[in-house]
Amino acid sequence: MAGLGPNEALIGAPGSRARLSTPALVLDLDRFEANLAAMAAWASDAGVRLRPHAKMHKTPRIAQAQVAAGAVGICCATVGEAEVMVAAGIADVLITSPAVAPGKPTRVAALNRRAKQLAVVADHPDNVAALAAANASGDRPLTVYLEVDVGSARTGVTGAAAGVAVVEAIRSSDSLRFGGVQAYAGYLQHMPDYDARWAELERAMAPLREVLAALAEIGVRPEVVTGGGSGSHRMDPEMGLLNELQVGSYCVMDVDYDRVDFVGGDGAPPYLPALFVQATAINVNHDDTAIVDAGLKVFATDGPLPRFAGGAPVGATFRFKGDEHGAVVYGDANERLALGDTVLIQAPHCDPTINLHDVLHCLRGDRLVDIWPIAARGASA
Amino acid sequence: MAGLGPNEALIGAPGSRARLSTPALVLDLDRFEANLAAMAAWASDAGVRLRPHAKMHKTPRIAQAQVAAGAVGICCATVGEAEVMVAAGIADVLITSPAVAPGKPTRVAALNRRAKQLAVVADHPDNVAALAAANASGDRPLTVYLEVDVGSARTGVTGAAAGVAVVEAIRSSDSLRFGGVQAYAGYLQHMPDYDARWAELERAMAPLREVLAALAEIGVRPEVVTGGGSGSHRMDPEMGLLNELQVGSYCVMDVDYDRVDFVGGDGAPPYLPALFVQATAINVNHDDTAIVDAGLKVFATDGPLPRFAGGAPVGATFRFKGDEHGAVVYGDANERLALGDTVLIQAPHCDPTINLHDVLHCLRGDRLVDIWPIAARGASA
Repeated sequence: MAGLGPNEALIGAPGSRARLSTPALVLDLDRFEANLAAMAAWASDAGVRLRPHAKMHKTPRIAQAQVAAGAVGICCATVGEAEVMVAAGIADVLITSPAVAPGKPTRVAALNRRAKQLAVVADHPDNVAALAAANASGDRPLTVYLEVDVGSARTGVTGAAAGVAVVEAIRSSDSLRFGGVQAYAGYLQHMPDYDARWAELERAMAPLREVLAALAEIGVRPEVVTGGGSGSHRMDPEMGLLNELQVGSYCVMDVDYDRVDFVGGDGAPPYLPALFVQATAINVNHDDTAIVDAGLKVFATDGPLPRFAGGAPVGATFRFKGDEHGAVVYGDANERLALGDTVLIQAPHCDPTINLHDVLHCLRGDRLVDIWPIAARGASA
Repeated sequence: MAGLGPNEALIGAPGSRARLSTPALVLDLDRFEANLAAMAAWASDAGVRLRPHAKMHKTPRIAQAQVAAGAVGICCATVGEAEVMVAAGIADVLITSPAVAPGKPTRVAALNRRAKQLAVVADHPDNVAALAAANASGDRPLTVYLEVDVGSARTGVTGAAAGVAVVEAIRSSDSLRFGGVQAYAGYLQHMPDYDARWAELERAMAPLREVLAALAEIGVRPEVVTGGGSGSHRMDPEMGLLNELQVGSYCVMDVDYDRVDFVGGDGAPPYLPALFVQATAINVNHDDTAIVDAGLKVFATDGPLPRFAGGAPVGATFRFKGDEHGAVVYGDANERLALGDTVLIQAPHCDPTINLHDVLHCLRGDRLVDIWPIAARGASA
């Protein structure tokens, strides 16, 4: 897509929200900013560093807003994302997955020359050797974190001995610097129940405790222990292991995270849904449904279904009708949509939903006030 | 993503396939060209026009190859896709979904000035009126097709009277021209069994027969009746209703379409898988799995699971491990992957998989020979 898409000319126009060419990914700026402020205030009280994860939003403007709200820097999941964020001026970037594929160590070393602060995780001595070789001619060391697998069975070392071996490999290289330890229990972040999530987190973090103990035995006490996510962030400080949190979804929320009890009790949810797809009723020829112009090319399909957040009759539910279409299933609803009516649909799983779109349409009430490029969209390599 | 991505410098280099930064969406050009040739030869024998659907590939270079192989033009699902394809020089474009959302009729009318040949479908008199108004100051009529709903309960008119009303609205406008009728039974294209699909197609097409009969009664015999897809294309000419086919997936195939019996019998499948994601083993710390750098941000998740097509141990299966990661689950396999090994994974559902990527890495054997921008990726509005 060239530039900011078909709605660029509407920026600033009163009532422009109703005139958006759809489907359009929209961000409620008031709610987004309230979510940033709520997280920043909580982190300040809790005394933890925030390093929000940009894999969720892939949007330099959001990363900049997070840093402005007090984050120490951001995380990226891929080298490609990090290249985009560094180019956008983000000063401190941690790449949270090992850079193993062809060309990746070289690209990381090249980025280390351009970035103000860059770090990458590693979980295997061979990868540490590849990073060291790639950065051998660099003018400053590349910072490398040990990643520990805490229950996801994904990346990270398994076992304290393997962790010590990776740290020793990092510390024995002149071209590398040991930055700390990462442990991310991604699989439990979306567990709705607070107590069940807490119990699972206790279990998950046991390997991290073991690795930290083994490192202490060789005199290594990591300055930074980073990890966690929106689901566990209020537990992690109490657990006493992490001092830097990689929260992501809190700033826009989604249908999946709306089911998560963050605070353990009856308190109001601290973060509010701010991310929606605006769609238009393009077919009203059926008695039981209307068809909107939003299908599985604008919504993630790995989580729960998208959910109506405005415009649709009360009681109506969303159903996918292929790549470009969705159905407003009326069910017991009494109202009906007219041709051209607009509906607002909450994103089901925010990360892969945002990754389908090129721009975020930023709204204040009924006005389109800005369009932000999702500049790292698709930067998967 | 800027330009052609991190692998641009590898174009033309011997053995470059093994050096791709991953995950990388790859197109086997030999197979792709064989698929184009097989479809073109079949259509020529069958005496039907081909208008392949570009919603599948969103790639001007593929559209150009299809036209070069004899297609009369292409289809687009969205106005945004059509804008990209017209800008890329495609001479004849049909937009296959009604242009209802705000700004869409105006954009279609503007595109009608730039395109050599453009058409759009409509299924409601109010939308016809909006198109007529938008094109009122145009220097030539906008071609509009009636869309008939043939069982998808999505877009299209339901009932012969509604169809006649739309056609009369089109024909009564000075700024519009009636182009023909579209009927697309998308829901049955992926039915694996030939006979079951045939029976379903017979049922689905009944409303089209009724509309064509009602139009004949008022003296209207559409020049073009367009529709169908890869699943039904060998049946549609026998059915005697369509004279132009909107095939899409045939040119790259996917796991889902590999289950479809196109020819009704024991013959070899006429189209071969040509679309894969190349990924790298980035973690081999587990006994039962390796982790690759390909997750649900590079594969569609609405269909079957991705399937290994090369590099993985025989018997291993793919499992999603989140947004950026997948697991090579060894199961009973004897072999193991080493850190940095490359695997090739067949796309599960081609349309939404391609829509996740910015470029296609075109391979001849082990050489990267070109990179094609997926220029209409994300052009959902």
